[in-house]
Amino acid sequence: MGYFRKNIEQISGYQPGLQPAGVDIIKLNTNENPYPPSPKVMRALNEIRPEQLRRYPDPVGDVFRRVAAEVNAVEPEYIMCCNGGDELLSLAVRVFCDEKRPLAYPVPTYSLYPVLAGLQNCKAIEVPFDDEFNLPARLANTGANLTILCNPNAPSGTFISVSEIASLADELKETVLLIDEAYADFAEDNCVNLVRDFDNVIILRSMSKGYSLAGLRFGYAVAKPDMINGLVKAKDSYNVDAISIAAAAAALKDRKYFTENIRKIKESRQNLIEQLRGMDFAVPDSFANFVIAESKSCQAADIYERLVQRCIYVRYFKLPGLENKLRITVGTDEQNRQLMLALKEILQDIK
Amino acid sequence: MGYFRKNIEQISGYQPGLQPAGVDIIKLNTNENPYPPSPKVMRALNEIRPEQLRRYPDPVGDVFRRVAAEVNAVEPEYIMCCNGGDELLSLAVRVFCDEKRPLAYPVPTYSLYPVLAGLQNCKAIEVPFDDEFNLPARLANTGANLTILCNPNAPSGTFISVSEIASLADELKETVLLIDEAYADFAEDNCVNLVRDFDNVIILRSMSKGYSLAGLRFGYAVAKPDMINGLVKAKDSYNVDAISIAAAAAALKDRKYFTENIRKIKESRQNLIEQLRGMDFAVPDSFANFVIAESKSCQAADIYERLVQRCIYVRYFKLPGLENKLRITVGTDEQNRQLMLALKEILQDIK
Repeated sequence: MGYFRKNIEQISGYQPGLQPAGVDIIKLNTNENPYPPSPKVMRALNEIRPEQLRRYPDPVGDVFRRVAAEVNAVEPEYIMCCNGGDELLSLAVRVFCDEKRPLAYPVPTYSLYPVLAGLQNCKAIEVPFDDEFNLPARLANTGANLTILCNPNAPSGTFISVSEIASLADELKETVLLIDEAYADFAEDNCVNLVRDFDNVIILRSMSKGYSLAGLRFGYAVAKPDMINGLVKAKDSYNVDAISIAAAAAALKDRKYFTENIRKIKESRQNLIEQLRGMDFAVPDSFANFVIAESKSCQAADIYERLVQRCIYVRYFKLPGLENKLRITVGTDEQNRQLMLALKEILQDIK
Repeated sequence: MGYFRKNIEQISGYQPGLQPAGVDIIKLNTNENPYPPSPKVMRALNEIRPEQLRRYPDPVGDVFRRVAAEVNAVEPEYIMCCNGGDELLSLAVRVFCDEKRPLAYPVPTYSLYPVLAGLQNCKAIEVPFDDEFNLPARLANTGANLTILCNPNAPSGTFISVSEIASLADELKETVLLIDEAYADFAEDNCVNLVRDFDNVIILRSMSKGYSLAGLRFGYAVAKPDMINGLVKAKDSYNVDAISIAAAAAALKDRKYFTENIRKIKESRQNLIEQLRGMDFAVPDSFANFVIAESKSCQAADIYERLVQRCIYVRYFKLPGLENKLRITVGTDEQNRQLMLALKEILQDIK
């Protein structure tokens, strides 16, 4: 068919991680939180009235904005609700980039970014990380109109300090720096305070990981009001629905549940890293809810296949810099234990 | 700020209808259904489990696709779920149009279309309707890559026959015809069967109006699988959430509730039209859940303001062809009665 624009014909679209069905599987492949969302989310769902469904939702989701403003110590005008963090990424590429205005990001990173560049028919400038995933100096001089930095980075789990990112924002000041903090809930620090000092910074936050709400599709932007207003003009008028606004607000408000959830995952993450290191894997420190593990003696693709045979799903990317690595979501302690048992058997089988 | 693309800087964004708060108002301005959604929707909400929120949703919303396929007598591969019908419109403009590939539509119509053209920086070719809102012959020869036809049209409520639209699809065959059927549930006929004969036809349906789910943000496309696959590549991977998929499927499945809801609205619509005509208004037949009324002796803007003072909201557009018209959503019989009482008083006051 010749109906589509050429750039659309040419791209293959983003490939989300497998979503296998079945109760017996151990699913550590798409960075979902292993614990359920706050009970207050379910309570918020039970309180939805037919009238909220019958009428159009609040176009800016003010109920959520007020909670997000309080949690992040900004005014509600600094917040924009999104139908998942992906919607903000898509929107940013559409409003800042075109054939003459490139997108830049370090690689390897979230594999959606090049897909979005393809959809917008803009140039994607990919700047390689070094082996330790340090901030590449060249990122400040790409000539791109939009730079995206995923921090903590996926799929490496590594973290770049706020002061280094502040310097980058300063160097990029005529252009936009979007900091994709989808995993910031699992780190010790984050860049949200940069929005006070920098007109050109947009922070992306997600409710999918830290708040166990991947099924709800809810994320948000934090940025100066002028920046937020520009993004709002380009979004669908009613981009988030009445139920999601209520449920996401309830989750974000429950700080106690959130803090305990994050504490458990950090503890499990540390155990997982130590066990993997004690076995056969090189594993950098992680600041996300996943770890990236490189086998010193076996092929990652081989290990991946053998895990699938045991109904354990992790993520394997056939991408430069990731050839022999597995990205493993931090599960419950029991899931992690079963993963380690399986890995032990698999490594013995292969040797 | 110079961060945004020029076309984004220049547009002012879509202005959704007022969403006034308060229990005493009569809200007939944004074409919401006056009746609550099916009780089965609320039951579906109560059955949502935390696990559905914790995990990513089905990227294609198969539970909904299967119901929509059955209702429309097509295969599930003909269906794509959207985060409201607006998402499909935005997506279509992005995949089919650009600076060299214009968008065309007859006017006056849904005022979102020119906003989407502005966002995509593509030319918008506006072809005026005649006074009776007949299909303009020139629409077949605009040179646009995407033609959008809202049918029944908003804000006129008028309907163009399926056979005329089939001829248009045939004439446009190298380019795409998107038929925005957001209001088709209130008409006597629709174009969904054209997707069997025409590769270039996309049907848009909404759950907002006929199913009382404006707050849920759910719409869908019906088209040949090749067309659907091209659109799916460009959408966000998880564009509809787990709750919406379940709730929208429950609503669409409840045919009995839907049929009765539509019957009531058509009956109220007929009464409303007759009463308006008996008073001072010219009102064309309507095939939607709203009517467009032109006062023969008073200014529409004046009537609008006086209705607002009485806490009755209708829609007034300052657009060519609509200068002296009011668009009135069909409410409950009681709401319509109060509207008529207010209009009687207002017309007497003005005279």
